[in-house]
Amino acid sequence: MTDHEIFELGDFAFAGGTVPDVELAYRTYGELAADKSNAVLFPTWFAGTHTANEWLIGPDKALDTSRYFVIVPNMFGNGLSSSPSNTPAPYDRGRFPNVTILDNVTAQHRLITEHFGITRLALVTGASMGAAQSYQWATSYPDMVQRLASITGSSHTSPHNRVFLDGLRSALTADSAFADGDYSELPHRGLRAFSHVLAGWALSQAFYWERVYERLGFATLDDFLTGLWEPIFANTDANDLLSQIWTWEHADIGLTPGFDGDTIAALASITAEAVALPGERDLYFPPEDEAWAVGHMRNAKLSVVPGIWGHLSGGGHDPEAAAFIGNALRELLAR
Amino acid sequence: MTDHEIFELGDFAFAGGTVPDVELAYRTYGELAADKSNAVLFPTWFAGTHTANEWLIGPDKALDTSRYFVIVPNMFGNGLSSSPSNTPAPYDRGRFPNVTILDNVTAQHRLITEHFGITRLALVTGASMGAAQSYQWATSYPDMVQRLASITGSSHTSPHNRVFLDGLRSALTADSAFADGDYSELPHRGLRAFSHVLAGWALSQAFYWERVYERLGFATLDDFLTGLWEPIFANTDANDLLSQIWTWEHADIGLTPGFDGDTIAALASITAEAVALPGERDLYFPPEDEAWAVGHMRNAKLSVVPGIWGHLSGGGHDPEAAAFIGNALRELLAR
Repeated sequence: MTDHEIFELGDFAFAGGTVPDVELAYRTYGELAADKSNAVLFPTWFAGTHTANEWLIGPDKALDTSRYFVIVPNMFGNGLSSSPSNTPAPYDRGRFPNVTILDNVTAQHRLITEHFGITRLALVTGASMGAAQSYQWATSYPDMVQRLASITGSSHTSPHNRVFLDGLRSALTADSAFADGDYSELPHRGLRAFSHVLAGWALSQAFYWERVYERLGFATLDDFLTGLWEPIFANTDANDLLSQIWTWEHADIGLTPGFDGDTIAALASITAEAVALPGERDLYFPPEDEAWAVGHMRNAKLSVVPGIWGHLSGGGHDPEAAAFIGNALRELLAR
Repeated sequence: MTDHEIFELGDFAFAGGTVPDVELAYRTYGELAADKSNAVLFPTWFAGTHTANEWLIGPDKALDTSRYFVIVPNMFGNGLSSSPSNTPAPYDRGRFPNVTILDNVTAQHRLITEHFGITRLALVTGASMGAAQSYQWATSYPDMVQRLASITGSSHTSPHNRVFLDGLRSALTADSAFADGDYSELPHRGLRAFSHVLAGWALSQAFYWERVYERLGFATLDDFLTGLWEPIFANTDANDLLSQIWTWEHADIGLTPGFDGDTIAALASITAEAVALPGERDLYFPPEDEAWAVGHMRNAKLSVVPGIWGHLSGGGHDPEAAAFIGNALRELLAR
């Protein structure tokens, strides 16, 4: 019993090399219309699987399953689609090739066209690394993407964001138990450090100042770190995390073939009706980056998600931010 | 040959326990006036020694040595004053007792009164943890502190700032070579992780977005991290860093005896003419925290240091921020 389907990609050429029997795990919600006009693609974020997207999907949600056919493809490296942790030798662990956002979108495009026979997507949306995949879709397949909603993410990973990611990787791999990826047991100290470093970045200064963690049921900061953050990554495969970090670091629609590294030209090529939804206090995808991107797009507007939940504004955890994002998607779909 | 003096404190009671033969390292600049009215106290920041303060001290600087007698006491744990790395057993390494900001100020007060016979300080100022010591001076000895300038610091370490520090500590101690402080060789992987995590926090998103590191002579982000950040901490004693982190985490003028944990009451008790100088884009001492503090003080004004150098705005590295801070100190001293 699984809660998802597998699309077999066969031999698949990732940026870092070709792997046989590559799998794309996905789940669908709702029914595809006879004319196939109601498909929404909603890729996953870092360390998340399709279930993490379900807060926006359902009969009473913005991605209304009585109306839309929602496809959630799992990002490579997340442990469900092909990943370091689930690929046999010689492509296992640290030997799994580097994967780009474009690789993910190329695989998803095959699922959408070959398996579903869909030629146009009513909306492509995603949060964080899901936003990077959405931007890539709108760049690689402009004729297929009618609408684009980038939630707490960006069109290319900024230099500061890369330093933030480098810090996460450095913390994780400072543990010698990591053993260059060939660990016999998970590098627990490294995973713990990873979760503690991320805790400072993922929420805003004001989230902590106002002690929102107390309202979430954690009496102290230590309880919040050990009770909420540590368990999230305690049993996560370290190579999977590092694979996804590499993907994240190298996200840039300017690297799409034909744009020669020119992110602005890639943004200008996007024809989708778009909305960018950065979190007001996001520390690694700050709103200014999306304001810049919107300034280079044809049909885009900026709509900053208010509140103090920082990057997690895009995760559905804060009811007000979740409602704001839901309304923005409804409005975009109504256009 | 040393470039500093030692004040012998004898048996000194730190918050975590009493240590014999405790030393306070300090350096003075300029001449103490006959009436002892021209003394400025300028404590050091995290992992810094007195030399790091010298950008503000000199005949042509805000702390004009033709006019002021500037005393720079080195913070405990910084490797010059008593620290885990320079204290003999049984108080060496991880066995060095926990030190508070108040402990530092108590020791400095003895230097100022017993050694110099000074009863009033024209100014107490410092950046980052130096600001915490300055606030503590103004709280513990209101009659001695005529003026207070808090640069890129705070009156108490905010919850988010504590999470940031916890991340640094987690990264450093993820390296099993740390061996609970009893390392035979420095934990190099942990120190490397520490420096990489800090690099993301110490400067703003915009500093990286605008690629200021290129203007500093680093061709790539990797060069900046390995060429500038790693060497800063590559040979730093890990126990010294952890001792100072503990001090930083527990900084709170509300913990001064008599205030019973009430930081607002402690702020309201400060009589010094004060200016708070947070960095506009500081990620762990954001301006909003100092705006809050100023709102609870009697004679304080907020003057945000403009620019994109984040926390390092207070370090003298950015000429414009340095000039702004220098002018603010001159103006305060002229009042």
